[in-house]
Amino acid sequence: MEENAEYLLKKITSKTALIGVVGSGYVGGSVADAAVNAGYHTLGFDIDPRRVEAIKNQKRDLLDATTEMQRLSECDVICICVPTPVNRDNSPNLEIIKTAAKTVGTYLHKGTLVITESSIAPGTSRNILLPLLSANGNVVGRDFYLGYSPERIDPGNKKYNMKQIPKVVAGYDEHSEILVQAFYRQLVDTIVPVSSIETAELTKVFENVFRLVNISLVNEIAEYATAMGVDAWEMIDAAATKPFGFLAHYPGPGAGGDCIPVLPYHLLQSANDRQLQLPLVECAAKINDQQPQKVVKKTLSALNGKHTHPNGHKPKVMLVGVSYKPDNADIRQSVALKIWDMLEEEGVTVTYHDPYVQEVNGASSTELNSETMASQDAIIITTAHTNIEYTTIVDSKRPVIDTRNKLKKIVDPNIIRI
Amino acid sequence: MEENAEYLLKKITSKTALIGVVGSGYVGGSVADAAVNAGYHTLGFDIDPRRVEAIKNQKRDLLDATTEMQRLSECDVICICVPTPVNRDNSPNLEIIKTAAKTVGTYLHKGTLVITESSIAPGTSRNILLPLLSANGNVVGRDFYLGYSPERIDPGNKKYNMKQIPKVVAGYDEHSEILVQAFYRQLVDTIVPVSSIETAELTKVFENVFRLVNISLVNEIAEYATAMGVDAWEMIDAAATKPFGFLAHYPGPGAGGDCIPVLPYHLLQSANDRQLQLPLVECAAKINDQQPQKVVKKTLSALNGKHTHPNGHKPKVMLVGVSYKPDNADIRQSVALKIWDMLEEEGVTVTYHDPYVQEVNGASSTELNSETMASQDAIIITTAHTNIEYTTIVDSKRPVIDTRNKLKKIVDPNIIRI
Repeated sequence: MEENAEYLLKKITSKTALIGVVGSGYVGGSVADAAVNAGYHTLGFDIDPRRVEAIKNQKRDLLDATTEMQRLSECDVICICVPTPVNRDNSPNLEIIKTAAKTVGTYLHKGTLVITESSIAPGTSRNILLPLLSANGNVVGRDFYLGYSPERIDPGNKKYNMKQIPKVVAGYDEHSEILVQAFYRQLVDTIVPVSSIETAELTKVFENVFRLVNISLVNEIAEYATAMGVDAWEMIDAAATKPFGFLAHYPGPGAGGDCIPVLPYHLLQSANDRQLQLPLVECAAKINDQQPQKVVKKTLSALNGKHTHPNGHKPKVMLVGVSYKPDNADIRQSVALKIWDMLEEEGVTVTYHDPYVQEVNGASSTELNSETMASQDAIIITTAHTNIEYTTIVDSKRPVIDTRNKLKKIVDPNIIRI
Repeated sequence: MEENAEYLLKKITSKTALIGVVGSGYVGGSVADAAVNAGYHTLGFDIDPRRVEAIKNQKRDLLDATTEMQRLSECDVICICVPTPVNRDNSPNLEIIKTAAKTVGTYLHKGTLVITESSIAPGTSRNILLPLLSANGNVVGRDFYLGYSPERIDPGNKKYNMKQIPKVVAGYDEHSEILVQAFYRQLVDTIVPVSSIETAELTKVFENVFRLVNISLVNEIAEYATAMGVDAWEMIDAAATKPFGFLAHYPGPGAGGDCIPVLPYHLLQSANDRQLQLPLVECAAKINDQQPQKVVKKTLSALNGKHTHPNGHKPKVMLVGVSYKPDNADIRQSVALKIWDMLEEEGVTVTYHDPYVQEVNGASSTELNSETMASQDAIIITTAHTNIEYTTIVDSKRPVIDTRNKLKKIVDPNIIRI
């Protein structure tokens, strides 16, 4: 084995390696946490001093954080955990990760292992990140090592945390492979080595594409079911009793979050660059994008034409839940916020209630009680939080657009299901 | 409770009811078997005397069979288990089930429970079958009872037989519900009552739509993966290590069988009749229909232009596996047979080997050995049978189009994967 690699391997297995985590959001936070739990000195990097402060305030012996990127030169293993969003036109935005790779390339010392955890389309590590990491003349496989291991964290999942979720790992070359496997073996219970970085990149993208396609499928079927007088949720629950070959997904206002609605567009761009068509993925993404508009349409129709009178009373709608997942404060790519924008464009005054999100869009969470309900023209249940007094909403006798089937046992003419 | 219903309920629970099963194919055979196992005298009906003979030859005390449809008048519970195929243009062909319903309607005696097990689009029981069953003036809910319980049998599944698979059941009215539940409670471990016949109809169709969409998705992704140098099977296996939110489906030459490629077209017709669009289902069906053509294209390209010489040697291709499922003789809607037709249209001489299917298309299964291999220009592995000597195929050094990844561990330039 090559000397640099051997030295790093010893540092990794003896827990004397310093771990740098670039990007201290949800993913970076989880990786840093896992590294510290495994016994590594860990240094979180972020351009946001508030995040750095929050990490320092944890006051954990092995954990520190900084905004000073030159301190990357101290690190032996560097995990890139920055977001890879899409622009407003759904084109992938790689600016953040390119900046991160450039910065890492500037400061890395010889014998460092660089691992990307961010979700990216196949080929991104090799064709986009590697040239940036090598810009200073460092050669991969000799001066530094390159790995890819996609984050699989499910925010709010109480059953599986990062340690318990099997981790797909790949290395650029043989030494990189050995090192990336050795590192994650310390952090998680199970590693899943695959034969190339592209395989690992596609694995993560495909997991999210699978979700998007199946969510769009149930949204498409739910409309048909409603037209046929069938309760889509009841039907899906019945299908879910099949003990093989089925996995339940449920209708809703569209999939949100940083992964499911975003990564299919990374994949579509990559396919498009190679003159390949992915009609099924394209169709699913389109259905997901149209879903909030359908909720808005149902809401406007429930407002009974009120929005058509610009000189009259401006209709009021309350959104119940603005995060993209139940029992969670995460508002990334939240569909509720898209519905909010669309409603405002239609001249609707929007307020919201969310026990997890105190402030958003320059507004604060409104109390949910009989008075605040009484002043609304309609209520939309946008997120399936469990700690909401849904009976208060029903008792208000206002039209309720229930996008999450939270009122399924209640028979009331005011409830509109999607 | 109404007198007719009460009398029938007693006959069902005391096992004195005679069960008639219309259609003695795979589904009818399983239902008859379950009824006999539950202790009911059971009479199988079929227009094919060979099937009737085969049932009689089982020589089971409680089981008999007949081609005489007037004997339906003896039955207390009648299960309709006939196929619901599509025509060549993929339009649903309901002629068989309409004939069955008409025949049952002609002969049923008062107080009979009629249950459909055949897969049909929502609304078919109510709008198409019920009028035929009532043609003699019998009124549903008074003179006879109507239930729907979709078959969920997975041919060849060793883990789950009919008794173990939870059974979705629905009744036309309250009495029908009570009776259909009482009947299936005797036959299977778990029943899953749903609130309407349409819900039960859609449940089954949706289960198959889910499969088709996910199979087409992996077929779409597999092409992209190949272009990116990624082994789709390795990637899917890696994704399958995610312990939540994922279910593995694998690429292949297209989904076959009587359900997965067929029922989505029943659904599409139903949606189309109501001016509803199901773009995702439509897209998935189209991908599945195009899949055999892709295999043919790869095969022709492997033949190295041989098929372009009409006056020369007619190229020879052997299909390994013609049934639609591994380790099974079922050739319904088998993709291998579609590939066979397409190859013949291209001037290829097609032979096949299948240990489960002795004769098909007027040909017999060819031995699989070094001599028979030597005379082939290419071999296509079309079905993933386990009891095949795949090494014999590889050793022949002929081009092998492996649509099932049966040769995954073998590195050989002659192997072409799809």
